[in-house]
Amino acid sequence: MSPDSPRAECAHRLAGFALGLDLRRVPAPVIERACLHVLDALGVALAATGYAFAERSRQAIGGLAGRGDSPVIGWPDRLPMRDAAWLNGLLIHGLDYDDTHGPSIVHASASALPAVLAAGLARGVSGGHALAAYLVAMEADARIGAVDGRFQKQGFHPTGVVGAFGATLAAGRLMGLDFQGLSHAQGIVLSMASGSLQFLEDGAWTKRMHPGWAASAALQAGALAAGGFTGPAQPYEGRYGLYRTYLGYDGGEALGQRLESLGESWEMLRVGIKPYPVCHFNHAFADAALALRAEHGLVPGDIERITVRIHPEQVPVVCEPVAAKCRPRTDYEAKFSVQFVVAAALARGRFTLDELEPDVLADETVLALAARCGYEADPTSAYPQVFPGEVVIETRDGRRLAHREAVNRGADGRPLSAAEIIAKFEDNAARIMPDAAVDELRERTLNLPALDSLADLAEAFTAEP
Amino acid sequence: MSPDSPRAECAHRLAGFALGLDLRRVPAPVIERACLHVLDALGVALAATGYAFAERSRQAIGGLAGRGDSPVIGWPDRLPMRDAAWLNGLLIHGLDYDDTHGPSIVHASASALPAVLAAGLARGVSGGHALAAYLVAMEADARIGAVDGRFQKQGFHPTGVVGAFGATLAAGRLMGLDFQGLSHAQGIVLSMASGSLQFLEDGAWTKRMHPGWAASAALQAGALAAGGFTGPAQPYEGRYGLYRTYLGYDGGEALGQRLESLGESWEMLRVGIKPYPVCHFNHAFADAALALRAEHGLVPGDIERITVRIHPEQVPVVCEPVAAKCRPRTDYEAKFSVQFVVAAALARGRFTLDELEPDVLADETVLALAARCGYEADPTSAYPQVFPGEVVIETRDGRRLAHREAVNRGADGRPLSAAEIIAKFEDNAARIMPDAAVDELRERTLNLPALDSLADLAEAFTAEP
Repeated sequence: MSPDSPRAECAHRLAGFALGLDLRRVPAPVIERACLHVLDALGVALAATGYAFAERSRQAIGGLAGRGDSPVIGWPDRLPMRDAAWLNGLLIHGLDYDDTHGPSIVHASASALPAVLAAGLARGVSGGHALAAYLVAMEADARIGAVDGRFQKQGFHPTGVVGAFGATLAAGRLMGLDFQGLSHAQGIVLSMASGSLQFLEDGAWTKRMHPGWAASAALQAGALAAGGFTGPAQPYEGRYGLYRTYLGYDGGEALGQRLESLGESWEMLRVGIKPYPVCHFNHAFADAALALRAEHGLVPGDIERITVRIHPEQVPVVCEPVAAKCRPRTDYEAKFSVQFVVAAALARGRFTLDELEPDVLADETVLALAARCGYEADPTSAYPQVFPGEVVIETRDGRRLAHREAVNRGADGRPLSAAEIIAKFEDNAARIMPDAAVDELRERTLNLPALDSLADLAEAFTAEP
Repeated sequence: MSPDSPRAECAHRLAGFALGLDLRRVPAPVIERACLHVLDALGVALAATGYAFAERSRQAIGGLAGRGDSPVIGWPDRLPMRDAAWLNGLLIHGLDYDDTHGPSIVHASASALPAVLAAGLARGVSGGHALAAYLVAMEADARIGAVDGRFQKQGFHPTGVVGAFGATLAAGRLMGLDFQGLSHAQGIVLSMASGSLQFLEDGAWTKRMHPGWAASAALQAGALAAGGFTGPAQPYEGRYGLYRTYLGYDGGEALGQRLESLGESWEMLRVGIKPYPVCHFNHAFADAALALRAEHGLVPGDIERITVRIHPEQVPVVCEPVAAKCRPRTDYEAKFSVQFVVAAALARGRFTLDELEPDVLADETVLALAARCGYEADPTSAYPQVFPGEVVIETRDGRRLAHREAVNRGADGRPLSAAEIIAKFEDNAARIMPDAAVDELRERTLNLPALDSLADLAEAFTAEP
């Protein structure tokens, strides 16, 4: 940058953090949590390999530039690094079962981990170096994206738009960029940052590709910067930077304040993991339904009527239109139906990816229960700080049974335990892998900081050719 | 798309145009003009290969996925198709000497031609098929982008953001997408459309990469759509579509109206070609200076004082700050200095890329003339419809000489002649190629509709390995 360039405060602050982060100075609970998030991301990606969208994406992306050296989660494919990153991001986010940082609403691991895997494996780094770069992306995204839902209001998907910046910092560190190079790379990726919410209008698949696209862009921005290509100095706070141009919002100073805590407090601890593969709003209701079923030994024939008590602002998302919600046609529609989620949980005693399969969507026992499920407004709900859920069941023999989850599991303040995250991983991974391979991958992932080579992790998450 | 998807009016209209365009029904002057624009784009790209930014980009992009089958203009490199498209776009737009559609302010050939070359060569199409696809992109961009400068006001570079859509239509047609596939591809590329104006703040190189990035995105959107990946049905007029989300502007209906003329009137005829490698505002002043020099046989020692008469709104862009404009430090600064452009034209009798080289930027004869160049407001100027220019010279022997160009050459309504475009091409291409190769490339390009194979064109614009 020339001496009279504008002050690159935010980009410099982030570049300094990215290059300076030393895993030895990161608190042990943060490192432990980061490993659990990598594990969760690998698990949902493995499960995703069984779906049609994943196979179609694999064929399309795999055909772009043919073979390469970079591995893909769950498959034997080796692709050029940005194609592997794109596909891995698509697998992690494709089932919408991956982690989310609440204040930014960014699905952060889905862009961070693919960028780290591609760049880290290309450079032959250790597990510890890879985990440090992953943390860089997670901490950066959490701060860049925390703008009170402005991206969504404008119509941008921050998982793509914001994720590109964190992934660039992580990939750039692993690619060996220096301070100036990492500053330029952030400016370059501003011109690649994208992701539209238009998929909300008709359920198009584009949401799934956003974080992988962000990771791919990050690798390309890093490569340009490494080659001496220049980016603008103020990608965040600039006159045409991320906030003013994408959001019409003068957010640079507020970002500067959020960046003050880099390396001191850890947003990694506030990234939520989904206990169920459905809309966050439905999680507490699934837990409440399962609790009632277990406590009272309920079977479907016992149930006369179900009522979910829910905050009025959540109703249009997961309760209405009632006819469609009670008989979802696709797994995607089922994820956003509280009636279906509660009914399937009551009928089957769990809610996993299996409960989104066509046989369950057509199961008349489940659909009959969904049809008996009404809702009423709960103005005492703490929504939107957390997503509470209360289920009331009237039985055929006249009992009225109720269970309330005041805070949804997985929310900030009620994180899933390590055991819960591991169990989720095992359920997901075992759909694709033999049990011994699941065990091996779990052990290597939870031991990531001590792995001499990131390639040892890759070996455990790829399939034999 | 499912039967109850939102009506995909604009995307369907564009897909229908893209698939239906038949070169036999395109008026001959449109086809002739299109060939001249391809020629102009190839010429500026050839000239660009001699610059440092191009070599650095070549190394960075060439390292992303190694070798492939797709050729690069002016070099022997063969890259994977999207890398070739990215690099070709960077070469065409890198000197800011490429064509511009006025109403949309989109540098359209810089994304259209790279997408056509990559996709067309991969499919082995004829010259005519390639030219038809190129026209699809040019006509689409001209209409999608014509929103009264709103992209620039918001901070987006429409050459990248809009160019992605035209390039997708062109590439998709050449890749063999059907009507549904081409509709999905437009929805997919909405999630990839990007390009920030933040480079304006410090002269970063990102502007140069936008059209190639758009072409690369187009090829990837097309590949996903070909593989059955779905995009949203309303990428333009949707609730979170291009206009509402990027611009906060409800522009769908107006686009629908602009699309009515597809295939009936030809925006191709309104795309301007730059006669000089400088800001559009300076073109008429260069012509006026050269006319005075030729008419009166002026040499620098004859000149006491120069005054440019210019619309007040153009002053901040090309006249001020005076000290910096009279002594530009870089070629980029020189492009935006009317004082320098007029001085160099008067001193050297022409204004080509040579006049932006360091020796001319340091030439004391040129700088002395620039220091004698003042400006005054011309409220009668027809700016911004066109960019007029008047130069007044007072000679040391007391004459007052004036020349006014009421409409800048290259503007809509005063297009460059075929001979002028060919001369520009020859000046650019001859910097890199032997004369015989320049002649061969010119002949093949102007004969593009009759070429049996687009590969015959590629053979003429690539270098021997």
